[in-house]
Amino acid sequence: MTGKVLALEPSLVFDTPAVFVDLERVEANIRKLQDYLDAHGIANRPHIKTHKLPYLAHLQVRAGAAGITVQTVGEAEVMAAAGIRDILVSYNVIGELKAARLAAVARLVDSLTVGVDNELALRTVARAGLLAERRLGILIEFESGKLRQGVADPESALELACAALADPFLEFRGLMTYPCGPATSAFIAEARTAFRAANVPLDVISAGGTPNMWRAHEVAGLTEYRAGTSIYHDRRSVGSGSATFDECALHVHATVVSRPDPERAVIDAGSKVLSSDAMPPSSGTGFGRVLEYTEAVIVELSEEHGVVDLSACAVRPALGERVRIVPNHVCAVSNHVDEVILHRGVRAPSPFPVAAPGRI
Amino acid sequence: MTGKVLALEPSLVFDTPAVFVDLERVEANIRKLQDYLDAHGIANRPHIKTHKLPYLAHLQVRAGAAGITVQTVGEAEVMAAAGIRDILVSYNVIGELKAARLAAVARLVDSLTVGVDNELALRTVARAGLLAERRLGILIEFESGKLRQGVADPESALELACAALADPFLEFRGLMTYPCGPATSAFIAEARTAFRAANVPLDVISAGGTPNMWRAHEVAGLTEYRAGTSIYHDRRSVGSGSATFDECALHVHATVVSRPDPERAVIDAGSKVLSSDAMPPSSGTGFGRVLEYTEAVIVELSEEHGVVDLSACAVRPALGERVRIVPNHVCAVSNHVDEVILHRGVRAPSPFPVAAPGRI
Repeated sequence: MTGKVLALEPSLVFDTPAVFVDLERVEANIRKLQDYLDAHGIANRPHIKTHKLPYLAHLQVRAGAAGITVQTVGEAEVMAAAGIRDILVSYNVIGELKAARLAAVARLVDSLTVGVDNELALRTVARAGLLAERRLGILIEFESGKLRQGVADPESALELACAALADPFLEFRGLMTYPCGPATSAFIAEARTAFRAANVPLDVISAGGTPNMWRAHEVAGLTEYRAGTSIYHDRRSVGSGSATFDECALHVHATVVSRPDPERAVIDAGSKVLSSDAMPPSSGTGFGRVLEYTEAVIVELSEEHGVVDLSACAVRPALGERVRIVPNHVCAVSNHVDEVILHRGVRAPSPFPVAAPGRI
Repeated sequence: MTGKVLALEPSLVFDTPAVFVDLERVEANIRKLQDYLDAHGIANRPHIKTHKLPYLAHLQVRAGAAGITVQTVGEAEVMAAAGIRDILVSYNVIGELKAARLAAVARLVDSLTVGVDNELALRTVARAGLLAERRLGILIEFESGKLRQGVADPESALELACAALADPFLEFRGLMTYPCGPATSAFIAEARTAFRAANVPLDVISAGGTPNMWRAHEVAGLTEYRAGTSIYHDRRSVGSGSATFDECALHVHATVVSRPDPERAVIDAGSKVLSSDAMPPSSGTGFGRVLEYTEAVIVELSEEHGVVDLSACAVRPALGERVRIVPNHVCAVSNHVDEVILHRGVRAPSPFPVAAPGRI
């Protein structure tokens, strides 16, 4: 231990495109959400799809999270093998192959729960429980405004809950939804009534999503919150009002590789690092915010090209210049790269492999 | 060698989401383009960003391609190490770190050429030549309608060409552009005049893109064509009229994991495998074509969810059913996965690692 720290001179050490994550901001983001949820008696179960780094998952648990959320069996496998002991898979897991993998995860952890919205997924989890010779938790997913998946009414949730209660390898735990909006409270109130009438306890009611996380305490009956993006934040976080650009912890570093005319630049960050994920309607155009040139608009992406409209910029970047970008959707960025460079302010940058890359 | 072939029972062998590539269609697609370009005396230099598989790059070269095109130094590294001997990097490469990597590639191959549109990229290639102690080829990229990058006029191209001619480690070879449209012919005609006047030979004039590839012979003066998508084809290929759905060689297999209401299904193929790449305006909505339910529309993607609108389908998929999808943009799919499953019709499926995954 020399005590020396490496000064951050990224242009010499790390070529572009590269993804940098500032641990000081990460830790502040973890702390802020944990404190908020603690203050309101809501359990914190962060979604690790955003970072896919066991190191950060452990930081979240050590800060007070009850466990983690994953979206795939593959992510669960990596996180379980990395020592995370309480995992929720918030996705319908279906089929014999996935049951076998889920069983292997179950053998490694203290608590494994799966969110389901149908009988086939429920039976897959039961099969995994049988294979692992232990009970797996079940949350029933309900629909609350996104029109993605989830049962539509409390009666359907109760029906699935009763199927779980009847299975020796399942433990019914409660309900989950995504995101958390106006429809969430209404469903919870109705469900509490229906489940009480049927004498089925609801230990867990879990909602998620970074955009509405600071209003989680307004949702009566919520016991758990799942936010993913909040650890890094991104342009969508800022667009939804849940963070400021100063709180964004992940930056894509890019180089200006072409200046074909005075109003246009091309950067070497395209859809392969930024993703083609757009901003939600009416909350902004373009594919990221260029921190050094905030009037610039990344108007179009090819896989390796980001075309930047500079017409609104009084000062404009030179060819070869390096810029930092806050991406629209940070989870997609983590999924696109094999490593991120963790640093602490301007000190100690070091590449860190992205585990559970979440690809197939 | 037992002579046995494995029957394709994908639901038993390969879980979803998974990416399947039919080698019979791949070989037919390679043959068709090679024959067309041969018939018109245009060199074929396929872009391997679409597949990122050395195996397929070698098939393309053995079928008659003059060499390959790559978009990144990382792709060049993988393809050179896999034995491909003639490589064009069709992208501005800038900086000392990339020069060193480019030099390492140069030492492995017979011919390495880089497309540039500015002096800084030109100097980077010259630096790589110096490091490798050999001359590297230069093509000057020109703009022909995409408003992405490339010099705007023949005079600028000539200026860069003269800079290349004056450098002992560079060999000026000609011009390149992307895509190939109405503006391409006009630029080529003007450039031929300007370069002839300056006594600078134009050995190579290279254009690219699958959408217009069957019209390459209409562009006077073209010597080389670079198409990537054409080896697999995708929904955009069909939209542009350059292929039929029967010619699409890559399919994403997905499972219906939720049927929350009669008009909606959720499949386990989301943006992490299909990408968020949309169709070009006015050529279709949604994120892929479901082959078994052609009236279905994949209306929205989350990372792991594909939300499918079934309202136009007379027959609808059941929960747990497996479907095949032709993605909008196949290059993005290859970039998202660690392996594809190569098969020959219904025989011999086998997972094949995607090299040069093209991530950072």
